[in-house]
Amino acid sequence: MTAPAAPGHAVPTEVLRARAYLMRCVEPPNRHLVALVGRHGPVEAADRLRRGAVGDDLLRAAAARRATDRSEADLAAAAAAGARLLVPEDPGWPAWAFAAFDRAGRADLAPPVALWARGPGGIAALSDRSLTVVGSRAATPYGLHVAAEFSAALAARGVAILSGAAFGIDAAAHRGALATDGSTVAVLACGPDRVYPAAHTELLERIAATGLVLSEYPPGTVPGRLRFLVRNRLLAALGSGTLVVEAGARSGTRRTAADATALGRPLMAVPGPVTSGLSVGCHELVRSLSASLVGRPEDVLEVVGRLGVDLAVPPQGESRPTDGLAPRVLAVHDALPARAAWPPGRIGEAAGAGPDELRAALTELEERGLAEYHQGLWQRTARRGGP
Amino acid sequence: MTAPAAPGHAVPTEVLRARAYLMRCVEPPNRHLVALVGRHGPVEAADRLRRGAVGDDLLRAAAARRATDRSEADLAAAAAAGARLLVPEDPGWPAWAFAAFDRAGRADLAPPVALWARGPGGIAALSDRSLTVVGSRAATPYGLHVAAEFSAALAARGVAILSGAAFGIDAAAHRGALATDGSTVAVLACGPDRVYPAAHTELLERIAATGLVLSEYPPGTVPGRLRFLVRNRLLAALGSGTLVVEAGARSGTRRTAADATALGRPLMAVPGPVTSGLSVGCHELVRSLSASLVGRPEDVLEVVGRLGVDLAVPPQGESRPTDGLAPRVLAVHDALPARAAWPPGRIGEAAGAGPDELRAALTELEERGLAEYHQGLWQRTARRGGP
Repeated sequence: MTAPAAPGHAVPTEVLRARAYLMRCVEPPNRHLVALVGRHGPVEAADRLRRGAVGDDLLRAAAARRATDRSEADLAAAAAAGARLLVPEDPGWPAWAFAAFDRAGRADLAPPVALWARGPGGIAALSDRSLTVVGSRAATPYGLHVAAEFSAALAARGVAILSGAAFGIDAAAHRGALATDGSTVAVLACGPDRVYPAAHTELLERIAATGLVLSEYPPGTVPGRLRFLVRNRLLAALGSGTLVVEAGARSGTRRTAADATALGRPLMAVPGPVTSGLSVGCHELVRSLSASLVGRPEDVLEVVGRLGVDLAVPPQGESRPTDGLAPRVLAVHDALPARAAWPPGRIGEAAGAGPDELRAALTELEERGLAEYHQGLWQRTARRGGP
Repeated sequence: MTAPAAPGHAVPTEVLRARAYLMRCVEPPNRHLVALVGRHGPVEAADRLRRGAVGDDLLRAAAARRATDRSEADLAAAAAAGARLLVPEDPGWPAWAFAAFDRAGRADLAPPVALWARGPGGIAALSDRSLTVVGSRAATPYGLHVAAEFSAALAARGVAILSGAAFGIDAAAHRGALATDGSTVAVLACGPDRVYPAAHTELLERIAATGLVLSEYPPGTVPGRLRFLVRNRLLAALGSGTLVVEAGARSGTRRTAADATALGRPLMAVPGPVTSGLSVGCHELVRSLSASLVGRPEDVLEVVGRLGVDLAVPPQGESRPTDGLAPRVLAVHDALPARAAWPPGRIGEAAGAGPDELRAALTELEERGLAEYHQGLWQRTARRGGP
């Protein structure tokens, strides 16, 4: 009846049953529940909750659901939908990523009790070098393009792309990663047997086929605004960094951004036209110094990639033939006529250079191919562009 | 023969003559010349340079031009072009702005010996609350739009817009200020009797008619690459802050940016699409933390405006009816069916809320007009949008 465990490893059924019961009893996140399980282990914790032998806060939070144990049915429903239950007792549990919850010191930033998982990906390995991409559902073509391009470029460099499978930026990020056969992970705000939004049925199938679809909600759970916000903390924790691609002045993205920061994860934002309302949120994040501005996938890789290996080289513009000239030599070059030829004295006066200085400058310019000398007269070597 | 002095004030002709001679003798910037004038005053300094009684460095820099005194002809040529000579002895000299040069501690950041000025504007007053706008000559329509819009908005709020009268961002900035009858100042890299670029003859006339056109170069001087770079330090010093609108990965704008920072002037950059090569320079300035990102004219005003008066209010998005709900109440709201009506028990289970909590939440939601009660059943009040 239980979902398949990882190869060469079997989590006891009673542990899976206990965690499945606990995760349905109490709406996440709940730090009292996490503390109870930490103290007594999942089986004893489930038993205590069933008996009502827990603190008032937890008792109140579980009041509506603790009387019924649906764990067996939940495990069956999840298995029927192709999902297994991933628990902290699994060697593949992203313990390192979730340790950030303990350090965050915010009551609403508690780790999940377990995660329903669909797909062949290993979450701990994927989370190791990963990027959470978030942004507006009502994204612009620019935002969609950037989300897809960045995700594709980073996935191609071995970075797993995490997102929430929503319309807009989320979907573009997943699709970008899939387009380069990269790894991508969707974290849902509904049960593992649900598809939300329904229009993304095929996208979620594709993600589950090669990557991973995760959820901390029991089968049958429908999404809601609170669940989206709550889910976002998992995205923030699982990503090595979080990238905001497009966000309005006031958006759920800001909550994910705040979570990422509270969890000690680097936050990045892609700028856009200041004339676009959907870049306002990104710009405000950079202005408030919560997020660093990233202009290229390389900038992101520098943050989420391997230390010292994935360093970005600053963008290079075209070089000019006069690059590197000392100011006094550049002054002589500026003074050289392009469509005539002058005697040295006239050039010296135009450039404000004395005879010695002028001679040295003209020699250097001639050696560099920037000045030409014909019968006692100097002129600039023809090239494209004006002064 | 001399240009008109400010009303109620007359700078002695010999001072104007001496400074006109000095500014032609030595190509700016030259800190030795500035030091000489500081030590002996302009008249004595000019006499010493004429006699060759100055240090080697200065002698070398003046070698090509010190033998001829063209000051009288220069003053006449400038006057014929409508320009007067503005000198530190003038009460309207921007001494405060140029004091930054002394503090910068960089040899190439020396103040001008004097400035040719065309137009009714008072440079010290204009510089007091001002913005230098710089950017690419090959700007995109986006850059031109932003430069014009920001300049217009800020000029309308009493900020003088300073720029270099070049094609692209410069011209858009000047035009934006002129469009709202604001103050604008052009600083040229050629003599006051020259128009560069020639296509901006009419623009420069309009600037000179209401604002100010400045130059530290003697009449007849043609622009050159070095002179553009050197001129930019004046723009950086005269602006209360410098705004970079569009700049390629490698552009002269970076030099102005570095000058502004060295002069202690706040540097700002307007972001743009990461897909635009002309926003790369702006993004790199923000990434290197030399520039702060600005998304709205208000952000700029906060920097260059009056302290405590011109504070920007963060951009506000639309508010939602569920804003401000506690997470537990929001969970109940999420659980409320929109197209059906449920008994309280079912809502409590869906939301994971016990009876007391549920009662309190439903009451609050009903009071806020977010939940409706009919014959023992609850439902969500209809509104636009999904979860």
